[in-house]
Amino acid sequence: MDLLNTIQAENLWQTIRNETGAAVNSEPILASFLHLTVLRHKSFAHMLAFHLSSKMSSAVMDARALFEIYLEALQENSSILNAALADIVAYYQRDPACETYSLPLLYYKGFHAIQTHRINHWLWQQRRHTLAYFLQNRASEVFGVDIHPAASLGYGIMIDHGTGVVIGETAILGNNISLLHGVTLGGSGKQTGDRHPKISDGVMIGANASVLGNIRVNTCAKIGAGSVVVEDVPQYSTVVGVPAKVISKDVKCETPAQEMDQRI
Amino acid sequence: MDLLNTIQAENLWQTIRNETGAAVNSEPILASFLHLTVLRHKSFAHMLAFHLSSKMSSAVMDARALFEIYLEALQENSSILNAALADIVAYYQRDPACETYSLPLLYYKGFHAIQTHRINHWLWQQRRHTLAYFLQNRASEVFGVDIHPAASLGYGIMIDHGTGVVIGETAILGNNISLLHGVTLGGSGKQTGDRHPKISDGVMIGANASVLGNIRVNTCAKIGAGSVVVEDVPQYSTVVGVPAKVISKDVKCETPAQEMDQRI
Amino acid sequence: MDLLNTIQAENLWQTIRNETGAAVNSEPILASFLHLTVLRHKSFAHMLAFHLSSKMSSAVMDARALFEIYLEALQENSSILNAALADIVAYYQRDPACETYSLPLLYYKGFHAIQTHRINHWLWQQRRHTLAYFLQNRASEVFGVDIHPAASLGYGIMIDHGTGVVIGETAILGNNISLLHGVTLGGSGKQTGDRHPKISDGVMIGANASVLGNIRVNTCAKIGAGSVVVEDVPQYSTVVGVPAKVISKDVKCETPAQEMDQRI
Amino acid sequence: MDLLNTIQAENLWQTIRNETGAAVNSEPILASFLHLTVLRHKSFAHMLAFHLSSKMSSAVMDARALFEIYLEALQENSSILNAALADIVAYYQRDPACETYSLPLLYYKGFHAIQTHRINHWLWQQRRHTLAYFLQNRASEVFGVDIHPAASLGYGIMIDHGTGVVIGETAILGNNISLLHGVTLGGSGKQTGDRHPKISDGVMIGANASVLGNIRVNTCAKIGAGSVVVEDVPQYSTVVGVPAKVISKDVKCETPAQEMDQRI
Amino acid sequence: MDLLNTIQAENLWQTIRNETGAAVNSEPILASFLHLTVLRHKSFAHMLAFHLSSKMSSAVMDARALFEIYLEALQENSSILNAALADIVAYYQRDPACETYSLPLLYYKGFHAIQTHRINHWLWQQRRHTLAYFLQNRASEVFGVDIHPAASLGYGIMIDHGTGVVIGETAILGNNISLLHGVTLGGSGKQTGDRHPKISDGVMIGANASVLGNIRVNTCAKIGAGSVVVEDVPQYSTVVGVPAKVISKDVKCETPAQEMDQRI
Amino acid sequence: MDLLNTIQAENLWQTIRNETGAAVNSEPILASFLHLTVLRHKSFAHMLAFHLSSKMSSAVMDARALFEIYLEALQENSSILNAALADIVAYYQRDPACETYSLPLLYYKGFHAIQTHRINHWLWQQRRHTLAYFLQNRASEVFGVDIHPAASLGYGIMIDHGTGVVIGETAILGNNISLLHGVTLGGSGKQTGDRHPKISDGVMIGANASVLGNIRVNTCAKIGAGSVVVEDVPQYSTVVGVPAKVISKDVKCETPAQEMDQRI
Repeated sequence: MDLLNTIQAENLWQTIRNETGAAVNSEPILASFLHLTVLRHKSFAHMLAFHLSSKMSSAVMDARALFEIYLEALQENSSILNAALADIVAYYQRDPACETYSLPLLYYKGFHAIQTHRINHWLWQQRRHTLAYFLQNRASEVFGVDIHPAASLGYGIMIDHGTGVVIGETAILGNNISLLHGVTLGGSGKQTGDRHPKISDGVMIGANASVLGNIRVNTCAKIGAGSVVVEDVPQYSTVVGVPAKVISKDVKCETPAQEMDQRI
Repeated sequence: MDLLNTIQAENLWQTIRNETGAAVNSEPILASFLHLTVLRHKSFAHMLAFHLSSKMSSAVMDARALFEIYLEALQENSSILNAALADIVAYYQRDPACETYSLPLLYYKGFHAIQTHRINHWLWQQRRHTLAYFLQNRASEVFGVDIHPAASLGYGIMIDHGTGVVIGETAILGNNISLLHGVTLGGSGKQTGDRHPKISDGVMIGANASVLGNIRVNTCAKIGAGSVVVEDVPQYSTVVGVPAKVISKDVKCETPAQEMDQRI
Repeated sequence: MDLLNTIQAENLWQTIRNETGAAVNSEPILASFLHLTVLRHKSFAHMLAFHLSSKMSSAVMDARALFEIYLEALQENSSILNAALADIVAYYQRDPACETYSLPLLYYKGFHAIQTHRINHWLWQQRRHTLAYFLQNRASEVFGVDIHPAASLGYGIMIDHGTGVVIGETAILGNNISLLHGVTLGGSGKQTGDRHPKISDGVMIGANASVLGNIRVNTCAKIGAGSVVVEDVPQYSTVVGVPAKVISKDVKCETPAQEMDQRI
Repeated sequence: MDLLNTIQAENLWQTIRNETGAAVNSEPILASFLHLTVLRHKSFAHMLAFHLSSKMSSAVMDARALFEIYLEALQENSSILNAALADIVAYYQRDPACETYSLPLLYYKGFHAIQTHRINHWLWQQRRHTLAYFLQNRASEVFGVDIHPAASLGYGIMIDHGTGVVIGETAILGNNISLLHGVTLGGSGKQTGDRHPKISDGVMIGANASVLGNIRVNTCAKIGAGSVVVEDVPQYSTVVGVPAKVISKDVKCETPAQEMDQRI
Repeated sequence: MDLLNTIQAENLWQTIRNETGAAVNSEPILASFLHLTVLRHKSFAHMLAFHLSSKMSSAVMDARALFEIYLEALQENSSILNAALADIVAYYQRDPACETYSLPLLYYKGFHAIQTHRINHWLWQQRRHTLAYFLQNRASEVFGVDIHPAASLGYGIMIDHGTGVVIGETAILGNNISLLHGVTLGGSGKQTGDRHPKISDGVMIGANASVLGNIRVNTCAKIGAGSVVVEDVPQYSTVVGVPAKVISKDVKCETPAQEMDQRI
Repeated sequence: MDLLNTIQAENLWQTIRNETGAAVNSEPILASFLHLTVLRHKSFAHMLAFHLSSKMSSAVMDARALFEIYLEALQENSSILNAALADIVAYYQRDPACETYSLPLLYYKGFHAIQTHRINHWLWQQRRHTLAYFLQNRASEVFGVDIHPAASLGYGIMIDHGTGVVIGETAILGNNISLLHGVTLGGSGKQTGDRHPKISDGVMIGANASVLGNIRVNTCAKIGAGSVVVEDVPQYSTVVGVPAKVISKDVKCETPAQEMDQRI
C-alpha cells in the first residue's frame, strides 16, 4: 500500500463526511457529537486536530491550546496527514470488523494513539521534549498506549485495540506494519543509546508479543501472539514461543501485516 | 450457578443498599458518591444505569442521554439485568478479595465492562451499530476492555481486573466463565465471517492468555496464564504454553471458573 | 540504593523546582500546568498530594476532598514520602530515557500508581476499606494499574509504563524492585488467605510476566518477559518461559532491578 | 390570551422543531447544541426538562438527577406545561424582537426563570422546601432572577431580560402579565404573613419598578419604569414616580402587558 | 446585635449540622451535596471555605487552590469568621422567609457575596491586589454583586437577594446594616481619593436605591426603594425620592435594618 | 479620545504583557491563569479571543469552536479590535479604581460584555442571527448584560460594573460614552421598527437610569442615576428624576462620560 495522492485523499475525506452524515440521520443521540467533531469542519486536518484534542485535553491542558498545536502540526507536515490517511485505509483493508473509513478515525484508540504519537514525534524533533513527555503521558492514560516521542513510525501502521502497547525510544518502524494490543518493542535495559527493535515493512506482531533489544525484524516476518523475541527475525519467516523460534520461512502472503493472522 | 429468581434478586438489591448505608456511615468522604449513585435510586436497574452512565459519559456524550439509553435497555431486557445480578454473585463467590456484593457493582471495572457490553450487544442487535461502536471505544478507554458489540456473552461472567481484555466480533461465551486480565479471544486474521473462539460453560482462562481463531474451548477447560491456544481444548482439560498443550485431562472441580486457579 | 536523608530530599525537591522553572520558560503552553502543579507549592508533600488528586479526582470525587486525604497521608507518614523520593531516584537511575527527576514525578503513570497505592495501603491499615477500594478502582481506570490496597510495597520501586500491572492482596514486595508493564503478581485461585507472591530485594520482572501463588522470588532474581512463574525462584537466578525454568544462576549485577535487562 | 388546546400545543412543538431544523442547516456551530437539546427529544416536556436541567445543573447538582425531577414535574402537572406553552406565545406576541417561537424557549433567561420557578412552586407545595430553596438559589445565580418558591404565577407571563427581578414569598400573579428586568415585588419588612403584592391580569410593570407590600395592582394597570409603588393601583390606570402617582385612568389597550410600553 | 461568643458560635454550627442532617433524610437528591458541603467538615471555617470555593472556582481557578486561600483567611482572621456567624443570625432575624440558619449559609447569594468580599478585603490589605480583583470579578459574575476589595464592611450585614448591588472602593459600612438588591454605594466620578458613602450602624437601604459620593448616612436612617441620595442623611430619618428628601425624622425602631421595611 | 494608532496599540499590548508578567511574579496562584490567558499568546487579538471564549463557553458550546469564531471576527474586523483597545483606555482614564490597563481587559465584566456584543453585532450583520441570539443569552447569564445583537456601539465605550444593563435592538450609541450598571436603553413597546434610544458622543448615564423609546440623548448630556428619560435630552444638559427633567444646561466638562459624576 502506498500513500494516497491528493485526489484519493480528498475522496476519502468526502467519504468520511458522507458516512458521518448517514450516521447523524440514523442515530440522533450521536448527532451532536458528529456535528461537533466531523461535519462542521472544513478539512480533514481541522477535523483530526479537533478530535485528537477532545481525547487528549484535560483539566490541566486546555483543549483550545492543544487544538492549535495539533492543527499547526498537521498543516505544516503533510507527511503526518498523509500517514494518517494511509493508516485509515490500512485499518479498513486489514480489519474485517472495520466496515467504514470513519470507524478507525472516530472510534479506534490504536489509531488515535498513532496520530498523537506522530505529532509528538514532530514536537520531539523540534526539541520540545517537555510537551512531548506531557502528551505521551496523557496518551498512555487515555489509550493505554505508551510510545516514546523519539520512536519513528512509517505509514500504513495499524495498532489493533491498542491497550498495553509499549514502544521504546530508539525503535524504528517501517511502513505497512500491524501490531496487536499488548505488543512491546522494548529495550535491553539500563544502558543508553540505540537499544530498541527495528521493524521492517510488512511485519505483523501478534497480541502480547515482546520484541526486546536492538534487533531487526525483517520484511514481512510474522511474530506469533505471546512470543518473546530477543534475536533478529529473518524476512518472510514466522517466529513463535518464549523465547521465539523460527517455525516457518515461507510466509505466503507478501505482507503479513495485511493478513493479520497472529496464530502460529 | 443459575440465574437469580425474583426474590433472590430483590434480596440482593436490599443487601447492596444495606452495605452502602453502612459505608456512608463509616466513610463520610464517600457519602456524597454513595447517595448519588446508590441510595437515592428506587431500583437496581435505575442504580446500574446511573453508575454506568457516570463511567461512560464524557464531554461529547451527555450523561443524561446515556442514562436514558441504559435505563431503557435494562428495563426492556430482563436478561441483561438478570445476567448482571448473576455476575455480581459470581464475583462474590469466586474472588476471595471480594468481601461484599457492592464491591464488583461499584468498583470492579471488569464488571462495568461486561455490563456496558451487554447493553452494547442489545444496541447491535437493533442495528444501532454506530452507537455501539462509539460506546465500545469509550469502554476501551475507560476500562481497558475492548469487546466487539457483536460478541455474545452468557451470565455468571467474571472478568477479573480487566485491563487488556479483547473479545472479537464472532466470539461466543457460555455461562459461568472466568477471564483474567489481558485475555484475548482473537481472530484468525483478515478473512471475514466466523473467526473467533467459542467458550463453553465453566471455562477459566488465565492472565494474558490468547485464544485465537474459530476454535472451541470445551466445558470446564482451564487455560494457563500466558498460554497461546490455537486449537480446540477438550472438556475438563488443562492447557498450558506457547503454543498451549494439554497437561491434564482430569480437572477436579466441576467449574474451573469458580476455582480461579490460573496456575499450571 | 537507600532512602534519602533530609538534605538529599530537600535537594531533590529544589532540583525538581529548578527543572520545572526551566520548562516553564521553554514551553509556554505548559506554564499554566507547571505553575499550578509544582511551582506554587511550598513543599514536596503538598505538590505530590496536589498532582495525585488531579489525576484521581472525578465528577464523583471532589478534588479538594481527595487532596486533603492525600496531604494528610503524606504529612503523617514520612515513610510514604521517603519511599516516593526513593522511587524518583530509582526511575532516574534505571531508565535511560528518564533524563530528569521531574519526569517520573509528573509524567510516569507507573510512578503515580505506586504513590496512590501507598496512600491506599495506609487507608487500608486504618480499616478504611471502602475508600481504599474506591481509589483502587479509580487508579485502575486512570493508570491501568490494579494493586489491591492490602499489598505491601517497599521503597525504590519502579513500575515501568504500567499498563496491565496487577498485584494481589497478599503480595509483599521488598525494596529496589523493577516491574515492567503487564506484570501480574497473582493468586492461586479461590481459596482465601496468603496466596500471592513475595518478591525480595533487587528483583526485576519483565514485561507481561506472571508470577502466581504464594511463592517467593528471591533476592536479585530476574524473570524474563512473558514468563509464567509458579514456583520459588532462587536468588541471583534468571528464569524464562511458560512455565518458567531457571536458565542461569549467576546473575552478574547485584540488582537486576537496576539493570532492567528483561531479555532472556 | 388563553391556554393552548391540545392541537395548538402540538402544532407549536412541531413549529419549534421545524425552526430548529432550519437553524441546524444554517448554523453548523449550533448543530451540536440543537440536536442535543431539541431535535432528539420526542416531546416538548422532554425537551424542556432537558434544557432547564442543562441550565441549572452544576458540579454539585447532577444533571441526570435534575432532569428526572423536571421531567416528572412536567409530566405530572399539565398546568405547568400548558403555562410554559402560553408563555412562549406571550413572548412571541409581545416582544417585537422575538421573531420565532424557539427564541424564548432556547435563549431568554426570563423564560427559563419562570419555568424553573413553576416547578419549584410544585416542589414547595409538596413540602420539598429544601430542594426548592436550593434551586431558587441556582436560578438566582444563573438567571439573576430571584423568585421565592411559594410565590404563585399564572400563565402567559413574560419576564423580559430578567436580570434583577425579585418576587417575594406571598406574591400572587394572575395571567397575561409582563414584567421588565429589575422589577421587585417585595415585602413590607420583617413581619411574617401575607406581605407581598397581588398582581391582576393584564398588568405591565416597567424596568426597575418596585411594588412593595401587600397591595393590589388591579387589572390592566401599567406601572412606569423606575417607579416605586406602595399603594393599590386602580384598574386601567397608569402610575409613575417615586413614590408612584396615578397619571392616567384610561389605559386604551385592554392589556398593557401585551403592548409593553413602559414609558410614562 | 453583637458578635456571637464562642459558645454561641459552636451552638450555631451544631444547629446548622442538625438542620442539614434533617435535610439529608427528607430530600435524598440533596444528600450528596449536603454531605460534601456540610456534614463531612469538622469545623464551620472548613465548611464555609469549601462552600465558597465551590461557588467561586472555575475552569481557570482551581477549587483546591481557592479552598486553601479561603481556609487560611478564615483560620487566621477570627473577625471574618465571627462576622460571618453574625451575618447568619442577621438574615435569620430580619428575613421572615428565612426559616433556618442554614438557609443563608447555603443558599443566599447575598450572604456568599459578603463572605467572599471579606476575604477579598483581607487579601487587599495584604496588598494582594491582583488576586482580589480576580475574585471580585468572579463574584460579580456568579452573584451579580460587585464590591471593590478595598471597601470595608462591619458585621451583622445582610444583602438581600443581591443582584445588582455595587459598593465602591472607599465605601465604609458599620454594623447591623441591611441592603436590598440593586443598591449602589457609588462614587462621585473621575476624581480619585475618598469618594464613596459611609453607612452608619443600623441603616436600611431599599431596593435599587443609589447613594452617591462621599456622604454619610447616619445611624438608623432608612432609604426608600428606588431613591437617589446625594447628601448626608440624618440619623433616625427616612429619605425618599429622586433626588431623595427627608420625609420623616422619627424612625421608631432602633434599627431599620432589622425591620426591613423599605416602603416609604 | 480617538482610536489608537498602530504604534499605540502595540505599546498597549506590550504594557498589558508587562503588567501580567509582574502579576505572575507577585501572585503565584494566578500564574496558571495568566500564562494560559495572556502570556502565551502572540497577539492581542489571539489573547482577547481566548479570554472571551473562556468566559462564554459552556457544556453545550465548545470553547474551541467559540475561540475560532472570535478569532476570525477580531482578525477580519480591525474596527472591533480597535474599539476594544479604545475601550481599555476609556476604563483606565475614567475609572479612578482602574489602576492598570489589564484590569478591564481581564476582570471587568462590563468590558467583556461590550466586546462579545461587538462580535455578536458582526455575526448579526452577516445574518447569523441564531448564533448571535445564542451568544446574547450566554452573555446575559454570565455578565448580567443583555444587548440585542442588532444594537450599534461606537468606540471608547465604558459599561461600569454592568449588572442589569439592557440595550435594545434599534439602539445606536456613538463614541466615548459611559453607562453605569442597571442602565436600560429600552423600547417603546410592542410596535416593531425603530423604537430605541440614540445616544450621542460623550454622554454619561448614571446607575439604574432608564432611557425609553426612539429619542435622542444629545452630545455630552448627563443623565442622573435612577432617572427615567422619555424625551430627547439637549446637548450639554443634565437631566434628573422620574420622569427626568433638565436641571442644568451648562455641563462644564466636554464629555461627562469622562468625568463619570452620576450625581445630580
